[in-house]
Amino acid sequence: MKPLLTLEMSQAIQKAANESRTTQSLLTIDQLSHNDIFTILDDAKCFSYSQKDWHLSQERLVANLFFEPSTRTHYSFISAEEQLGMKVANFNPMTSSQQKGESLSDTARTFEAIGYDALVIRHGDDDYYKELDQLSIPIINAGSGKAHHPTQCLLDLFTIYDEFHTIAGLNVLIVGDIKHSRVASSNITTLERLGANVKVSGPTELQKDGETRFEQLDNALEWADVVMMLRIQFERHEEVLSIEKEDYLTYYGLTKDRAARLKDHAIIMHPAPMNRGIEIDSDVVEFSKSRIFKQMENGVYTRKAILKYCLGESF
Amino acid sequence: MKPLLTLEMSQAIQKAANESRTTQSLLTIDQLSHNDIFTILDDAKCFSYSQKDWHLSQERLVANLFFEPSTRTHYSFISAEEQLGMKVANFNPMTSSQQKGESLSDTARTFEAIGYDALVIRHGDDDYYKELDQLSIPIINAGSGKAHHPTQCLLDLFTIYDEFHTIAGLNVLIVGDIKHSRVASSNITTLERLGANVKVSGPTELQKDGETRFEQLDNALEWADVVMMLRIQFERHEEVLSIEKEDYLTYYGLTKDRAARLKDHAIIMHPAPMNRGIEIDSDVVEFSKSRIFKQMENGVYTRKAILKYCLGESF
Amino acid sequence: MKPLLTLEMSQAIQKAANESRTTQSLLTIDQLSHNDIFTILDDAKCFSYSQKDWHLSQERLVANLFFEPSTRTHYSFISAEEQLGMKVANFNPMTSSQQKGESLSDTARTFEAIGYDALVIRHGDDDYYKELDQLSIPIINAGSGKAHHPTQCLLDLFTIYDEFHTIAGLNVLIVGDIKHSRVASSNITTLERLGANVKVSGPTELQKDGETRFEQLDNALEWADVVMMLRIQFERHEEVLSIEKEDYLTYYGLTKDRAARLKDHAIIMHPAPMNRGIEIDSDVVEFSKSRIFKQMENGVYTRKAILKYCLGESF
Repeated sequence: MKPLLTLEMSQAIQKAANESRTTQSLLTIDQLSHNDIFTILDDAKCFSYSQKDWHLSQERLVANLFFEPSTRTHYSFISAEEQLGMKVANFNPMTSSQQKGESLSDTARTFEAIGYDALVIRHGDDDYYKELDQLSIPIINAGSGKAHHPTQCLLDLFTIYDEFHTIAGLNVLIVGDIKHSRVASSNITTLERLGANVKVSGPTELQKDGETRFEQLDNALEWADVVMMLRIQFERHEEVLSIEKEDYLTYYGLTKDRAARLKDHAIIMHPAPMNRGIEIDSDVVEFSKSRIFKQMENGVYTRKAILKYCLGESF
Repeated sequence: MKPLLTLEMSQAIQKAANESRTTQSLLTIDQLSHNDIFTILDDAKCFSYSQKDWHLSQERLVANLFFEPSTRTHYSFISAEEQLGMKVANFNPMTSSQQKGESLSDTARTFEAIGYDALVIRHGDDDYYKELDQLSIPIINAGSGKAHHPTQCLLDLFTIYDEFHTIAGLNVLIVGDIKHSRVASSNITTLERLGANVKVSGPTELQKDGETRFEQLDNALEWADVVMMLRIQFERHEEVLSIEKEDYLTYYGLTKDRAARLKDHAIIMHPAPMNRGIEIDSDVVEFSKSRIFKQMENGVYTRKAILKYCLGESF
Repeated sequence: MKPLLTLEMSQAIQKAANESRTTQSLLTIDQLSHNDIFTILDDAKCFSYSQKDWHLSQERLVANLFFEPSTRTHYSFISAEEQLGMKVANFNPMTSSQQKGESLSDTARTFEAIGYDALVIRHGDDDYYKELDQLSIPIINAGSGKAHHPTQCLLDLFTIYDEFHTIAGLNVLIVGDIKHSRVASSNITTLERLGANVKVSGPTELQKDGETRFEQLDNALEWADVVMMLRIQFERHEEVLSIEKEDYLTYYGLTKDRAARLKDHAIIMHPAPMNRGIEIDSDVVEFSKSRIFKQMENGVYTRKAILKYCLGESF
């Protein structure tokens, strides 16, 4: 056992090191200033080509708490965390004390108590993070109910920014289930905040009441610099939809014919998972205009930048 | 391919290195001598303030085999293992050959055969480890049926020792379902072995027959230096209990009024997960006397010390 | 942000490094030349005694996608990957977007897009990998339906080769459910390709039609250098089998009496999980002739060699 005298010394050193670095949560896209957003986008750019092997300045434990199924977001975070040299634990609520009725707050505080430096959380409640205000480690919201998905929003922004070197002035068309999509609402707000022009399209049953941005799909194709297709969850909306699944592509989907009418420089995006043959023709996914798999790649650069931001690290 | 001559040489070196280090399992708290226990507690103390970044002397693979749900114990072990620089695999029995009817023994021997250096096991059978005597790698019991939970016992001891710098002479009151708790029975035996005075309380239906340590809760509050609340699993004991769930806190729980009657220096413990509002008032969890989240933190220091002990490593 | 000038430079360097190394998938044992097989077996030998701590030349991310339950294969890969210094992610289809109906192809391409350098896949479809031809990262087939299991085949070959220093000329007897076993068909073809003599035995109901290699078990015991017992999945074949479960060992299993009739130098193998007391007497598993746990150990050496081969790395 080391002499007890080192206690205060080692604590003081630790404290000083921690205080020199300010950590912060990322809960909603709205919390980020214009400057914060572009810091993250520029860092993502760096990660995409010149900082591949950059590691955090110290060993950090991160826990991914996914209370809802996810492939892309979850494994994209794992990839980002591993690349940053973090130690990663993946929490499976199916084999945990949540089965014994423990609250999210007590579970999250447990992870803090046992030494985790950051939590990445996906949860079904829109505002789950509001009950986590006692935590002093950063939380990164990886999707909350129908409300927020800031890391998806940032990776979409990065994909556009990486393509056009700007966001201001671009015409962005978002197509599909605008009403129930956490991706859509965050993206609309943020794109407009950054100076883009946004129109929405899709079945009128799946639009917000009084939506002034609405446009018929066939009237907006030539207008768009960016077309963002959303996943349509047919099984969830079958009752309200006025058409059959087989007809969806023809009426509201991105067919080959529609894709051919896009501007030369236009790009096609989709947050995935895709319903090939429903909201998008399977061949269109593979078109040179498609950035769908590029978005997944960009998701890792963006999440590395987000982790760097939340943990207060510098290049 | 390297020349075959190196075979005997490399094996001899490997063998010598392994033999210089004696590994051992931790199956029950009773197997530990007085000296073993305080070695672990002192090492846990070191980990808590001056050996944070200490790593094992070589790369070690550990597998966590959790056949029952757990958050704290499982992730506390992961955190401890990662901090020690171990490579961690988490075995999920739901997606394994146990579904094909493989015995625990054959599963454990498989992990030994494929290169794991230690196994951390939680299992529903009281004595599961008795069928594992063919293994030559150490097993750390992370909870076995209703019988043993030595790492929880050690972290509880550490929390008390860290607070009072002694265990001998302290008055410890354990409250709740003594009859079915593996934590309670280990703690009673060990605390008394180390010189503490132990009383138990809670519904008489949940006490062992002929328990002489029993005391009414309201009569023991001023006596206790340490109050250990246990989780009450209402759904399991509803039939035998003479009161309703809504009344449990009033009759047998740690209310704010009862907590106010504790000694100034007394501490409140709970192994968690907690039923806030049943065995403990939710506000009491946050009182300055509460060490409940501190116990979780201490669990990592203690488990690091246990892994160090079982793998025969030195500072 | 680093100056943009470094972009082309860093990309060129990255590209050159990648191109100097040729990666390749391992989908079926048939794709491997005689030379490929012995390169892998020799490398496995090296890993077994003189290259224990050898790491890949750069940090690599690998994802294990197991769509069917597995202990040995899955954790053997994890152990191999960790020992090679890879960063490992384990994909759980139960908590993923596959629940949302995503195709295997889109899931696999997602893992490629988010930065994984190799995929280890077990899947229920015989030819799942045929839909993955768009991927440019190597795929290692960890078992596909009833058709292929090349890494099991290679570890079996290694166990024989490690024992006898040859494969040509050996007499190998494979016993059990030949008809439904992916292990059996690969092993028969490959052992014969490498010059071994193969006979099969077991219930005639579980043999392929017109099988000329068939021999009664009791007539082949003295002939065999290697006896490979297969797992019998009684629940799946109960209808076609002409005998009861209790009688299987007596008629078709490796009893102690039968094991006693084997040649002095003969070895007993089983891919596991075993049904002790059905296809093999539990005591025989522990006999000195048994290589069953040794096979598991060898599985790690072999998979390290396979990963080295697929990633184009050299010692």
